[in-house]
Amino acid sequence: MSLPPGMKFNKDGLLVAIVQDSKNHEVLMQAFMNEEAMRLTLATGIAHYFSRSRNTLWKKGETSGHVQYVKEMRVDCDQDAVLLKVEQVGAACHAGFRSCFYRLVGADGSLREEGDKIFDPQQK
Amino acid sequence: MSLPPGMKFNKDGLLVAIVQDSKNHEVLMQAFMNEEAMRLTLATGIAHYFSRSRNTLWKKGETSGHVQYVKEMRVDCDQDAVLLKVEQVGAACHAGFRSCFYRLVGADGSLREEGDKIFDPQQK
Repeated sequence: MSLPPGMKFNKDGLLVAIVQDSKNHEVLMQAFMNEEAMRLTLATGIAHYFSRSRNTLWKKGETSGHVQYVKEMRVDCDQDAVLLKVEQVGAACHAGFRSCFYRLVGADGSLREEGDKIFDPQQK
Repeated sequence: MSLPPGMKFNKDGLLVAIVQDSKNHEVLMQAFMNEEAMRLTLATGIAHYFSRSRNTLWKKGETSGHVQYVKEMRVDCDQDAVLLKVEQVGAACHAGFRSCFYRLVGADGSLREEGDKIFDPQQK
């Protein structure tokens, strides 16, 4: 599988991946991809990322079953970020919410939960 | 202005900002924020970022007029990314497209333009 010419991975070999629900357009999460993750995502149609905390390739949902089927991949103008439109199985967030962006920031810096909770991580 | 406690700026003092149209939910661009940019965005309701290429604070649209009025800010589970829902004046992309993500990536790595072009950067 070929990557588009001119992709700009940063000094750590990564680029930003933004993940959006292909149906309701909710932004679900943000992750990073290395070349291998991008290649595997294009080849399989299933989202793969690079986990910085575990320093390894990461097939999203491999243990949880919450995989992401990629319907569309886009690249931004300077080719250091990609946008995936996905069909999300279950929840994107390990905290049990459908989207990782489940907290609103107030003008005073306060945080307030507002999002669909799909599962309780304590019950896993 | 206070930032939410526990924000995780990276070793360069930055976090990922994802910018989404508050009305049609199109993902418009991806940028980075430092603490000052996040504070100014919360204080003014107008999107500010940190430009890595120019190594300076960047008020989006300061020269082009293509400012972003922030309707909502969200933070992700590990607090190293924010999502801005904005009212975009003009186009988010310097290439003239409404969204920076104006190119689709094919499974073979090919790129195809598909996006709303708002202005011709050659005519500016």
